[in-house]
Amino acid sequence: MSRPHPLHSITAEEITKASTLLKAILRERHGPDFKFRFKNVSIQEPPKALLLPYLDAEAAGVDTRYRPFVPRCADIVWTSSHERTLCQSTISLDSFTEVGRIQAAPGQHSSLDRDEMRKSARRILDDNLVKEAIKKLKLPESCVVQCDCWPYGADRDSTLETHKYIQGLLYARAPNGHPESNQYSFPLPFSPVLDIFEDKIVRLEPLASGGKEDGLKYHTATEEPMAHCVENEYYPGLQSSKTRDDVKPLHVEQPEGPSFTVTDTNCVSWQKWRIRVGFNYREGLTLHDIRYDGRPMFYRLSISEMTVPYGDPRSPFHRKQAFDLGDAGAGSTANNLALGCDCLGTIKYFGGWLNNEDGEPVEAGNVICLHEQDGGIGWKHTNHRTQGVAITRARNLIFQSILTVGNYEYIFAWIFWQNGNIEMETRATGILSTSLIDPGKTSEWGNVVSPGVLAANHQHLFSLRVDPMLDGHNNSLIQEESIPVPQSEDENPHGNAWRVVKTPFAKSGFADASPFTNRCFKIVNESMRNPVSGNPVGFKLVPQPCQLLLAGQNSVVRKRARFAEHHMWVTRYRDGDLWAGGRWTNQSLQETDGVADYASRDEDVRDQDIVIWHTFGMTHNPRVEDFPVMPVEVSTISLKPADFFTANPALDVPQSTQAVNKSTLVVQSHPGVSHKPTPSSAGCCHARL
Amino acid sequence: MSRPHPLHSITAEEITKASTLLKAILRERHGPDFKFRFKNVSIQEPPKALLLPYLDAEAAGVDTRYRPFVPRCADIVWTSSHERTLCQSTISLDSFTEVGRIQAAPGQHSSLDRDEMRKSARRILDDNLVKEAIKKLKLPESCVVQCDCWPYGADRDSTLETHKYIQGLLYARAPNGHPESNQYSFPLPFSPVLDIFEDKIVRLEPLASGGKEDGLKYHTATEEPMAHCVENEYYPGLQSSKTRDDVKPLHVEQPEGPSFTVTDTNCVSWQKWRIRVGFNYREGLTLHDIRYDGRPMFYRLSISEMTVPYGDPRSPFHRKQAFDLGDAGAGSTANNLALGCDCLGTIKYFGGWLNNEDGEPVEAGNVICLHEQDGGIGWKHTNHRTQGVAITRARNLIFQSILTVGNYEYIFAWIFWQNGNIEMETRATGILSTSLIDPGKTSEWGNVVSPGVLAANHQHLFSLRVDPMLDGHNNSLIQEESIPVPQSEDENPHGNAWRVVKTPFAKSGFADASPFTNRCFKIVNESMRNPVSGNPVGFKLVPQPCQLLLAGQNSVVRKRARFAEHHMWVTRYRDGDLWAGGRWTNQSLQETDGVADYASRDEDVRDQDIVIWHTFGMTHNPRVEDFPVMPVEVSTISLKPADFFTANPALDVPQSTQAVNKSTLVVQSHPGVSHKPTPSSAGCCHARL
Repeated sequence: MSRPHPLHSITAEEITKASTLLKAILRERHGPDFKFRFKNVSIQEPPKALLLPYLDAEAAGVDTRYRPFVPRCADIVWTSSHERTLCQSTISLDSFTEVGRIQAAPGQHSSLDRDEMRKSARRILDDNLVKEAIKKLKLPESCVVQCDCWPYGADRDSTLETHKYIQGLLYARAPNGHPESNQYSFPLPFSPVLDIFEDKIVRLEPLASGGKEDGLKYHTATEEPMAHCVENEYYPGLQSSKTRDDVKPLHVEQPEGPSFTVTDTNCVSWQKWRIRVGFNYREGLTLHDIRYDGRPMFYRLSISEMTVPYGDPRSPFHRKQAFDLGDAGAGSTANNLALGCDCLGTIKYFGGWLNNEDGEPVEAGNVICLHEQDGGIGWKHTNHRTQGVAITRARNLIFQSILTVGNYEYIFAWIFWQNGNIEMETRATGILSTSLIDPGKTSEWGNVVSPGVLAANHQHLFSLRVDPMLDGHNNSLIQEESIPVPQSEDENPHGNAWRVVKTPFAKSGFADASPFTNRCFKIVNESMRNPVSGNPVGFKLVPQPCQLLLAGQNSVVRKRARFAEHHMWVTRYRDGDLWAGGRWTNQSLQETDGVADYASRDEDVRDQDIVIWHTFGMTHNPRVEDFPVMPVEVSTISLKPADFFTANPALDVPQSTQAVNKSTLVVQSHPGVSHKPTPSSAGCCHARL
Repeated sequence: MSRPHPLHSITAEEITKASTLLKAILRERHGPDFKFRFKNVSIQEPPKALLLPYLDAEAAGVDTRYRPFVPRCADIVWTSSHERTLCQSTISLDSFTEVGRIQAAPGQHSSLDRDEMRKSARRILDDNLVKEAIKKLKLPESCVVQCDCWPYGADRDSTLETHKYIQGLLYARAPNGHPESNQYSFPLPFSPVLDIFEDKIVRLEPLASGGKEDGLKYHTATEEPMAHCVENEYYPGLQSSKTRDDVKPLHVEQPEGPSFTVTDTNCVSWQKWRIRVGFNYREGLTLHDIRYDGRPMFYRLSISEMTVPYGDPRSPFHRKQAFDLGDAGAGSTANNLALGCDCLGTIKYFGGWLNNEDGEPVEAGNVICLHEQDGGIGWKHTNHRTQGVAITRARNLIFQSILTVGNYEYIFAWIFWQNGNIEMETRATGILSTSLIDPGKTSEWGNVVSPGVLAANHQHLFSLRVDPMLDGHNNSLIQEESIPVPQSEDENPHGNAWRVVKTPFAKSGFADASPFTNRCFKIVNESMRNPVSGNPVGFKLVPQPCQLLLAGQNSVVRKRARFAEHHMWVTRYRDGDLWAGGRWTNQSLQETDGVADYASRDEDVRDQDIVIWHTFGMTHNPRVEDFPVMPVEVSTISLKPADFFTANPALDVPQSTQAVNKSTLVVQSHPGVSHKPTPSSAGCCHARL
């Protein structure tokens, strides 16, 4: 078998080979009874210095046989003796040797994996202490109690170094509830903490269910504390309301097939774009070696991390802070997408490979979907003198991936435009994380979204990682602002002028959004000038001016997620600097080797190989409408060419005509109304040249 | 013929009747030679006090015959004796009498209309002074010079009271250019000012074509100042680049027709929504009497005004400030939309009626289109325990209207979601307003987008007007912010908590966006409580934190557009308070009777009939990519229910299944690649209940 492309995600064969090798090495060194566990087996992306010449050769049309050799390595995260030791091994897939191993420091813990969570949930529910506590709640006999395993979060707690915990959040299904019954409307008022290393329940933590009047105190225990909770279903067939029957079918058809082609398994060509698709357990969907019309644009695009801190101060809720990539993994939790359900139109799927705790490959089915969408009008102008119309519709290319992280889902979509724009769209949906609230009470820390159900305020803060290569690998980052010029006879006699003030970054560091000064950030190549404007070729990123971390300056929450302290970071590229919140986020007491550390190296970033990081997201104070399942909350970040091209790159998109688009005219007749289509309905197309 | 619904836009018959009556009145009073001119004939919307009982009766299902009588009046804007007098007459269409007349104050000027602009352009180009000045430019013989008529803008100029001007912006078509050739790449370096009352060219204003090195000075005259300009075409067939041939057709089909129905000409019912569509010359598309599942939501939604100030300080560029609604009219400039060109799918069109200078009706063809779109995933959750998937796709309903205001176009779309969201999407496209720049020079006041072509920095600031009636007509506006709670043992021991601070508006006034405190504004009905949360039922508006007016405190630009000084305004409802920038914006020296004046009445707005105004938009410092025609710049404002409903209103949307959606799987085979669809491609649907 030929070697996969250096940017191909790991194959089943490679997982097996790498795991088998590591097993052999460990058994040889530590004996046949040595206990260890595979966490994640993935590809270690090649060093840029080796990969770049390969990609440039590829772009230049050099045949595979004559491209430079790029080593291919697997990255294995594993733990020994019940996770007390956490290691990362690098396995050469060329020489079949372990070429490197790093042992994590005490207090650094690996992410939670599915096997672990499934087993832990069972362990918790089977525990006698837990069973007894459930009995005291006097739930109806027919209620099934279920357990969601959460990362423990962190606190000033000296045991975190040597213990790894899981926080069990317990919920009941409605009496006689279907397996798909919505457990989140029956939250139990206590939470078991499981010590994974010791395999025992450490304690049951009572959960406050009081209201405004109770401050930080816990609820007043009642005989049947959950008696006021009611069934509130989202699953089809279980909902109390009738399904709408007036949504008429809408089909998207491409009779000649899609406009994209996929070659070499993961190389997508579409409308002058060329993009390599990647997938790994941690970041899920990644995009590489993005070129337009042959010009290099971006070396790598990814969502690097996210943190979801909750705002309820009542212990242990204060520890609720998920790092959905570092604690769980966007690839590990990626949905297997289904034709006609998750995606509409003409769809191409990409799969990937994950692994189980024994290091065996586990197929991750359709984890990425690719399709085209109509993007509405792309550009239009009517000549008012002649009424001559020129109009195009925008066609977009969408890479989509969906994560289920416990109760929540995130839909990530990279959207490519013919006009050179790249958008990162996130849709937050799924189910709110809930806790019990006493009857009749309300809370300062969230909203009552169903009887007895409090949905706590929380934030979702994402880190978008942009590794540019605009016409070459040495780029700069420039902050631009529009600043009024003071009124004066010499410069601005009428007071209408402003100046675009440009501030390049000399050293790695950070900056914040500033929408009222129209602050934007331009990634530019200062050695390449736009022949029309004379400006360096560039791309623009307008940071989303989201509210940043609300947690206090000295809080553990903040120390763990320093990436979320600023909207923008610029760092000098180094191999492996991939994770904004650091490699090991689970139970971390502080962000280690995250973007704040990368930035603090104080390196030169002007006309260098740089990486840009953008923190975006939202403060989500829940609405009643967000329950029992949340309508998508959509948020979009754009990268737009800014003097990268010499004209509108979508200028050459064919005109939008009825001959191609085949739309249908609605002529509805109702009593007293006659609708006569005006002659112009026949189409602007007639007036065309 | 039965009387039209009170919210029906004016009919051809009504225009004729009202104009004929006014003509008769004026001729009778002033004699048969009295010279006057019709500017705009439209419906004067009925007083709310009269219309409301009618709408409530209608909503209650009362037959037309038994609903209260609502008078129907035409609103005629007209001028006498070459516009020196500007009047607005109210004509009762029931009694055929002039029931009111207002004479505008000196200095208040009507908008420019198409007849006027066409005639003025001819007048300017035929002028000998102009012809002579053109000759001096030594353009090739085959260049045709064309004139765009601009509002003069304003300056501290005492003649503005008694004179009405047009500023001619002159451009040449490329040598031997086609009538559709892009004139904006050949901007002439002088601008004639036409006095409309006097019907004469007042002066030719030289236009600066210098660069950074020239400050406010004008260009150094050269022999052939435009010799470095080159053809830069956008029109199909004229472009120098070949049209792309790899965009495959994409059809949107609704085999069972659309999910909406239209009754009574302009009443749209769709997915529990009911909406009345309106159209008038000034605002274009308006929406009225919006209800969901029978519950009143919004009395009226509209774009009320926009201002486009330019940032070039060199006179006369400083006067470039268009009010595209007040100076031109979103209805007057609305495109006649074409099936398959402007709209894709199954499309319903609405037409309207405008008038010419003689008061005769002029059909405005398909000025509004209505269709459904797939809105991507609406909500999804996967039960991680069972892998049971629940997923819906969002269906959206779109009302779209497109304006061409000289060089620019705006695409306005109101987007309704099944989940209760209402979005206002604007797409700015069209062609940049350009001026000449000397060879090799660059400017601080804009960007060189084509050889010799400077596109000046400018702003687009819109005013969205929201007249709510959430479960009744007395509503309140509440500002909400998420503010960290100081860390303390008593309240926030771990530093993770924040508080949602709510500040109701007691008096009419304004506020600004504040994204870093997560500021949002909730329109609520304090007498109606959500039974689940106990909060007042409401809708949320997160203001777009755009950069506001950049013009200086004492500038005329700012005085004319005070609505653009703040992001949010709340006013007490009064009939006729419709225009954020005041009724008469053309050549205004200050905003008169605009939203700042409405707000300064200092009226009680808590639990009252209120109106909310949101200023949004962008500072547009042009990119080279924005020429020769600009890719759409998209911006969206959302109104979202916030504790208005007792659950996700889109909960009952049917599940997304392949059986209905009929998507197509792409199986591409390429050398060395075999793609086998995984079993799950068959659809999540199989796992369904």
